[in-house]
Amino acid sequence: MLSDCKFSGLLTDLYELTMAAGYVQSGFEARATFELYVRSLPERRNYLVAAGLEQALEFLENMRFSGEEIAYIRNLPVFGKVSSKFFDYLSDFRFTGDVCAIPEGTIYFPGEPVLRVTAPIVQAQLVETSLLSILHFQSVIASKAARITAAAAGRQVIEFGSRRAHGIEAGVLAARAAYIGGCEGTSNTYAGHRFNIPVYGTQAHSWIMAHADEAEAFSSFLDVFPQATLLVDTYNVRAAVEKIIALGRKPHGIRLDSGNVLADSEWLRNRLDQVGWNDVEVFVSGDLDEERIESLLNSSARINGFGVGTALSTSSDAPALGVIYKLVEVDVGGRVQSAAKFSEDKHTYPGSKQVFRFSNPDGILSHDIIGHEDESYPGAQPLLVGVMREGHRINAKESGAGAHAAQKRFLAGRDRLPKAIRGLDAAVRFPVQYSRKLEDLFIQFRENLASSRT
Amino acid sequence: MLSDCKFSGLLTDLYELTMAAGYVQSGFEARATFELYVRSLPERRNYLVAAGLEQALEFLENMRFSGEEIAYIRNLPVFGKVSSKFFDYLSDFRFTGDVCAIPEGTIYFPGEPVLRVTAPIVQAQLVETSLLSILHFQSVIASKAARITAAAAGRQVIEFGSRRAHGIEAGVLAARAAYIGGCEGTSNTYAGHRFNIPVYGTQAHSWIMAHADEAEAFSSFLDVFPQATLLVDTYNVRAAVEKIIALGRKPHGIRLDSGNVLADSEWLRNRLDQVGWNDVEVFVSGDLDEERIESLLNSSARINGFGVGTALSTSSDAPALGVIYKLVEVDVGGRVQSAAKFSEDKHTYPGSKQVFRFSNPDGILSHDIIGHEDESYPGAQPLLVGVMREGHRINAKESGAGAHAAQKRFLAGRDRLPKAIRGLDAAVRFPVQYSRKLEDLFIQFRENLASSRT
Repeated sequence: MLSDCKFSGLLTDLYELTMAAGYVQSGFEARATFELYVRSLPERRNYLVAAGLEQALEFLENMRFSGEEIAYIRNLPVFGKVSSKFFDYLSDFRFTGDVCAIPEGTIYFPGEPVLRVTAPIVQAQLVETSLLSILHFQSVIASKAARITAAAAGRQVIEFGSRRAHGIEAGVLAARAAYIGGCEGTSNTYAGHRFNIPVYGTQAHSWIMAHADEAEAFSSFLDVFPQATLLVDTYNVRAAVEKIIALGRKPHGIRLDSGNVLADSEWLRNRLDQVGWNDVEVFVSGDLDEERIESLLNSSARINGFGVGTALSTSSDAPALGVIYKLVEVDVGGRVQSAAKFSEDKHTYPGSKQVFRFSNPDGILSHDIIGHEDESYPGAQPLLVGVMREGHRINAKESGAGAHAAQKRFLAGRDRLPKAIRGLDAAVRFPVQYSRKLEDLFIQFRENLASSRT
Repeated sequence: MLSDCKFSGLLTDLYELTMAAGYVQSGFEARATFELYVRSLPERRNYLVAAGLEQALEFLENMRFSGEEIAYIRNLPVFGKVSSKFFDYLSDFRFTGDVCAIPEGTIYFPGEPVLRVTAPIVQAQLVETSLLSILHFQSVIASKAARITAAAAGRQVIEFGSRRAHGIEAGVLAARAAYIGGCEGTSNTYAGHRFNIPVYGTQAHSWIMAHADEAEAFSSFLDVFPQATLLVDTYNVRAAVEKIIALGRKPHGIRLDSGNVLADSEWLRNRLDQVGWNDVEVFVSGDLDEERIESLLNSSARINGFGVGTALSTSSDAPALGVIYKLVEVDVGGRVQSAAKFSEDKHTYPGSKQVFRFSNPDGILSHDIIGHEDESYPGAQPLLVGVMREGHRINAKESGAGAHAAQKRFLAGRDRLPKAIRGLDAAVRFPVQYSRKLEDLFIQFRENLASSRT
């Protein structure tokens, strides 16, 4: 949709631009560190999955302001007192900061920074909105996919939700994130091409409806696609299956998209086995989510694979996470100062952080410590790694490698979660605590604030 | 994000491409009519708002397959038996169909087609996924915005949700759709530029946190932006307000983003009035939705405007609608045949349709009839109008005119809804029925089906 604006500097909330103008005009020069993290888990999530970093870094490398865009800002009445120094700044804008991040596919928890930006404060501020938007969305979808693929317990899950994702771009990126969260592929052909993800498709009701005869509709489709999965619920499921059997042409699979899927899948499996079609797969779609899949499998439904649409591509039960991007440190001319927010109901921890992950001897994760970045814990894995230095990606991956590596990382990580955290039910929270050093910094900051700022 | 693919033909589910190949290869030539509509209302919606047509038509006019994309499809194993006739077809692909649609900003109800495509069946099929995706998303957001702006009862509502929309494109288009649904503007600067929507912004906590002294932070911001709205909840709301008053520099407004907004807004209004700052506006943001706004206003909160983020930009209580695109008519060599789906739990109405809207003498809407397109009802307004002929837009609007005209249409339409439908609570459903002629067609189709197809 937005070809003309992929990396536009205008892709930001207006207040980022007013604050940027304020910093430039008032000559406030500082190097700032911001951290991006999620405040809390939605009710039906036990963990989250990092995703979207590849797109976020691509944005940081390429964000620019065109002359026309700068003219637009300059003409907004609110910028009436802003001097040309700021507009010159925008025309030369390049992101030159350093970025650390948790690699895509890593499992993470609330409070844990998934990205840390250190840059001149104007730059770090201007990229806030887009960083949040890019990393939030893919993490929402990957975390939902993680539940759905867990429920399918090894059976194939294909992402089918482009048509009800939040726009065309969201459909493409949902396919990518769903793949990271363990899906085997997607119906989104663009995502297949762009990210080298396996694509899958069957046939729609319209194919059957356009033909005067249902048997002819199946037959002519098999002529072109001998390995097709045929859709049998346009009129009457069992009648349709008998027509396919009568054709004597074995398809790859049969798809059920409505009706009593449990009963029909049992009948279908038996009927297929009866005629010796034991290898014809039963594929189910239509308003599925992780609870429905778990319930079907608990009822011993004999299903080989699932196509999951809307619930996955919109994460319909939890379409957003409380993700924020907070200033934690400011360096004004070499004087490093911590920063935090202490409003009545919300506060943040000051200081530049690292997440330390601890495992039991059997490899199962035991707990995380959110510490200061200069701490070290023998035996723990630090999750944040350097991904960008002075505006350039470190070890930029070939296109497509990102999603595959991320899926692999996620699947390995899920296997190391305590069993209760891995499941669908609300579990005892995975233990995450702040380090002693961060707690001290927090207390000290609050005391300074009480004495000096308020 | 997706500059290289804005109008890519790959932006579709794989099965659209396999069916297209099936039609081309089997020589099945027909002119088909598909209709796009929503099956049912989410629990907390009394009506829906049409939005996204401008982007949908832009897509239809520009959708193409590049050589590289065609090579990708050709190399997919599933296309192994597909002849070059199909790939030649793709390289020449242009959408040449006719489109009727309900104008953006029109209020509509389940079952009512918002778009009707008549085109060679291959074309009509290939555009399904993108049409659904584009029209669904903006309608979801405009319908949510309609509730939020209704709750605000004339007070300013600004869309603030880009950072948690489903990606960058979704943020931009959510801003557009929210504007159609009655918002006064957006914080999304790109959307402001692209769609000529008013943009708004205040300042973030980081501005305050980056300065060693809160009063200095306010003061230096006012130096550059004398008409600023200042954010007072970084540390302590009342202390911050006193600092602003002590500066003696009157801002345009004060923003509360957390805490006890009801109590703080009352205290703030009184305090501002006390010092003679009666025209300084109280602006509230932070986890707002229509219920929260209604509850604040029912408690007589004294608030001038609201910034609404996540709940609006993701329509968090109902992030998706059951929107479908169904074949209703096929014309094979002049023989016009109705089409419908009759699975056990879902059926569709055959025939090419029009929506007829009836009003009472006082202008308030009384009911809709979904009829056959060749019917006519004196005094009723037909909602679907021709918007594209042979692949070209009829009366293509200047960029930006679309969202403004649509907002105007929506606001006028909302005033004509029966009062119960206009409100937030679940109402008696607005009366929508199928015409006698469509009911007869439905029965006839079902009987034909029973005798011939199953």
